[in-house]
Amino acid sequence: MQTLEKFTEFSAYQTLKNLAQSPIDLTQAGVLSPERIRKFQGESAGFKCLFATERVTDDVIAALQRLAQEAKVFAQMEKMQSGQTMNFIEGFPSENRAVLHTALRDFFDHPNEAKTAKEATQMAKAEVDKMKAFEAEMESFEHLVVVGIGGSQLGPEAIYLALKAYQKKGKQVHFISNVDPDNAQSVLSRLDPAKTLALVVSKTGSTLETLTNEEFVRDWFKEHEIEAKNQFISVTGEGSPLDDKKRYRECFYIWDWVGGRFCSTAASGGVIVVFACGFSTYWEFLKGAHSMDRAALNHDITENLPLLGAMLSIWNSNFLKYPTLAIVPYSQALSRWPAHVQQVEMESNGKRTDRRGKDVGFRTSPIYWGEPGTNAQHSFFQMIHQGTDTVPIEFIGFKESQLKRDRLQNDSSSQEKLLSNMFAQALALAEGQTNDNPNKSFPGNRPSHILLAKELTPHAVGALFAYYEHKTAFQGFVWNINSFDQEGVQLGKVLANRFIDLFRQRRGAKGKVEASPQEEAYLTQLDSIE
Amino acid sequence: MQTLEKFTEFSAYQTLKNLAQSPIDLTQAGVLSPERIRKFQGESAGFKCLFATERVTDDVIAALQRLAQEAKVFAQMEKMQSGQTMNFIEGFPSENRAVLHTALRDFFDHPNEAKTAKEATQMAKAEVDKMKAFEAEMESFEHLVVVGIGGSQLGPEAIYLALKAYQKKGKQVHFISNVDPDNAQSVLSRLDPAKTLALVVSKTGSTLETLTNEEFVRDWFKEHEIEAKNQFISVTGEGSPLDDKKRYRECFYIWDWVGGRFCSTAASGGVIVVFACGFSTYWEFLKGAHSMDRAALNHDITENLPLLGAMLSIWNSNFLKYPTLAIVPYSQALSRWPAHVQQVEMESNGKRTDRRGKDVGFRTSPIYWGEPGTNAQHSFFQMIHQGTDTVPIEFIGFKESQLKRDRLQNDSSSQEKLLSNMFAQALALAEGQTNDNPNKSFPGNRPSHILLAKELTPHAVGALFAYYEHKTAFQGFVWNINSFDQEGVQLGKVLANRFIDLFRQRRGAKGKVEASPQEEAYLTQLDSIE
Repeated sequence: MQTLEKFTEFSAYQTLKNLAQSPIDLTQAGVLSPERIRKFQGESAGFKCLFATERVTDDVIAALQRLAQEAKVFAQMEKMQSGQTMNFIEGFPSENRAVLHTALRDFFDHPNEAKTAKEATQMAKAEVDKMKAFEAEMESFEHLVVVGIGGSQLGPEAIYLALKAYQKKGKQVHFISNVDPDNAQSVLSRLDPAKTLALVVSKTGSTLETLTNEEFVRDWFKEHEIEAKNQFISVTGEGSPLDDKKRYRECFYIWDWVGGRFCSTAASGGVIVVFACGFSTYWEFLKGAHSMDRAALNHDITENLPLLGAMLSIWNSNFLKYPTLAIVPYSQALSRWPAHVQQVEMESNGKRTDRRGKDVGFRTSPIYWGEPGTNAQHSFFQMIHQGTDTVPIEFIGFKESQLKRDRLQNDSSSQEKLLSNMFAQALALAEGQTNDNPNKSFPGNRPSHILLAKELTPHAVGALFAYYEHKTAFQGFVWNINSFDQEGVQLGKVLANRFIDLFRQRRGAKGKVEASPQEEAYLTQLDSIE
Repeated sequence: MQTLEKFTEFSAYQTLKNLAQSPIDLTQAGVLSPERIRKFQGESAGFKCLFATERVTDDVIAALQRLAQEAKVFAQMEKMQSGQTMNFIEGFPSENRAVLHTALRDFFDHPNEAKTAKEATQMAKAEVDKMKAFEAEMESFEHLVVVGIGGSQLGPEAIYLALKAYQKKGKQVHFISNVDPDNAQSVLSRLDPAKTLALVVSKTGSTLETLTNEEFVRDWFKEHEIEAKNQFISVTGEGSPLDDKKRYRECFYIWDWVGGRFCSTAASGGVIVVFACGFSTYWEFLKGAHSMDRAALNHDITENLPLLGAMLSIWNSNFLKYPTLAIVPYSQALSRWPAHVQQVEMESNGKRTDRRGKDVGFRTSPIYWGEPGTNAQHSFFQMIHQGTDTVPIEFIGFKESQLKRDRLQNDSSSQEKLLSNMFAQALALAEGQTNDNPNKSFPGNRPSHILLAKELTPHAVGALFAYYEHKTAFQGFVWNINSFDQEGVQLGKVLANRFIDLFRQRRGAKGKVEASPQEEAYLTQLDSIE
């Protein structure tokens, strides 16, 4: 990958900086016109993005499109999907890997023709076939306990909850992620071990929390006199300590060209979906993800929703200077989606060094947070409407419910009430309202857009999942940062291991770690608690 | 309440502004000394606050203490707990009410002697006694379905999860909050109606989501040919539509002197705790809340943890200019605590008008967000360590686990591993680390503090709950805003009702709402989705 220009040196950057001096005023009468609502929309893979309530104009959108071109994001997306090395830092030791999560679902129309991508797709397909074959073996289990953390939990849990409406009767999935012993104990105490299958997910097979919790679960089986080998399966890298048919009934593979937070369409999420909903649901989910992968190759910002989302985010964060972005799905099934997006976006783009090893000097990932609506309206929306800081919002809504069990009350359905609230919030935030009572005034000009689809089907869940993967990647491309490593988690690990060694030594274990004065001081504070 | 000076005009404000020009550099060798760790701590109601890793000095703490005094926060807290009118805007129509959530648990040592407070405490005690008497009637039910939203759900759910370790065998609580019909349907489809008690929570009895979902649940009982009256109880204001013994087996009261987000220690949370864990657990929880109420009256910032938390938050937000604050509990039982804090803080203090009806002109509530650790370390902590924005963190940790089912692995327990990670994060964020590889460098100076207690007992849950209530109130007192109303949620409601009427008219219902051009445009977009 040749060295690219710096984000702040693109000519579109200057244009946008100038445009951001006086963004359009959405509170002025007539601005938020029907024409504007019709015009400012994009569409990909079954989703519309309605962005009339963003503080953008034709000029802003044109400049964002130009910025994307100057940053060569289309070539970069093409390279990524083709398997070129995208996980790198120039001139410094780095992971130097391909980034091929798109190969995990490239089984449908227009497969990528590059050799590396094709090989990856073959490997991925073999695992998908293994999962299909394994479905029958999982039939006898009622519970699947997933032991994994980070990308091995957040994405899979978000997907599982999103697809719960498609769950087979008598199947339940549980997650043990935290090293907090109460997490494992409270999950296991509810389950019948004979009917429980345990899935351990770790690419390297070295994650502290996961290894600790796996042993917790193995002890539990042992206490109930159940042979653990028959109850365990794993998702891991080939050759890792978890790739061991003597300890696991089956081992599914992931590869070093898929980061943890990008592996939920592989077996990390796949085994769970196949277990809970069956293989056909998983296949539809993969098809949806693939259809968004294809859309991400489109050069027109309004036909490439991940790019549109990325550029609107950049506009709000780098130009209008809003430091956070809220994800507010009007769908209870997406209750953990914001936590998943938080990981994908912030672990990928929460970086301060660009791909040439230089300090970036501008904001990279904003803070992502959120809760489902309408609930959020009764929580933090007071601040969103009348607080002193502005929070751009990404709403997500669906025309129809999943379970098709709705009821009319006062001549409207709950789904209609739900959608009414979502549209009302977008309008209220944009337009505001003045009042003689200052405490009842709304300043308006608070930007948002709506992702809208027909229904949260498996296809839609897949498309939405890939939307955030590519939205994240596009931002990284524009900022010229490496979105695919996570060196920032290392220091905490090293220091935690020192504390763990100090605890071990207190229990009489041999060790050579000497407590630093600070470490000693914290342990003394802990001891003083009675 | 006499008019107070403006926050930015206090003399301590100027001192702090000057001190914020060059905050202490925690990355310098020797700064984070054992003496500092020992010195910078506070203690209240069984919790320590260790704040050596905040960017504060003796001068900063002294100025924050002085700022609290200049803002007369002690007199205001005293007035609040005594039942004087604290929910008001001078010179404009406003709620003009007392704010007496402390009266909900003023049954222990040193009861407040003011007449209004004593009367409120009497009313509250009568409801507590009713709950105690009602415990036996709930024995025959296995499931409690709570229908409520906002403060009727977030606080109660956070408390229920925090106390799950104390749950009686065979009892489960479920929440239906969202007007999304899939929320109600997915909860109900798992339950046996004959063994289900439904609790409807709404102070006014007029909340759209709650009324809609109540009817959803009533239909469900009817379908199963079960007399709904015997299965329903309510928590509401006296005289509201939910105060009706013909439709509810029992009605518990809340009052206009308790806001939704401050009513979880009343019956809104109480019925749930009594159902799930028994009355004695609820009583301990109330005792814990009361002990933090008492601490909130202490004039010394280090012996008044809610004030310390409030002033550290003000330092980070108003002086060091960090726009967000993350709540990261190292306890899976507190998994929904950040969502609850989000509501308490942001709905209370997300305001732009002060108590004299003037624009504040400075930042009020920052954005609160967070997830439990260690999970968060595998998610957004990359950004916290190496991102371009700084996020102050409030860690919460406990010396011991709740369930006392831990295991040694490699000579350390899971609880020790959990605590090791929390201490390590605080140190790593503060001290940082340089590296020849810029991608492996950590800038440090990222502030945090740790709330540490022995164990998450019912008493500790109560104390922690009251901690955030008072931390929120203290910030409002300093900023001279009204933390106790929520006018910012009104506009969205009004516009949502317009959309709901439009949907009704489409179904042939009579109505006189004419769609605005924008509303029409959004409905057209919805129709176009196929």
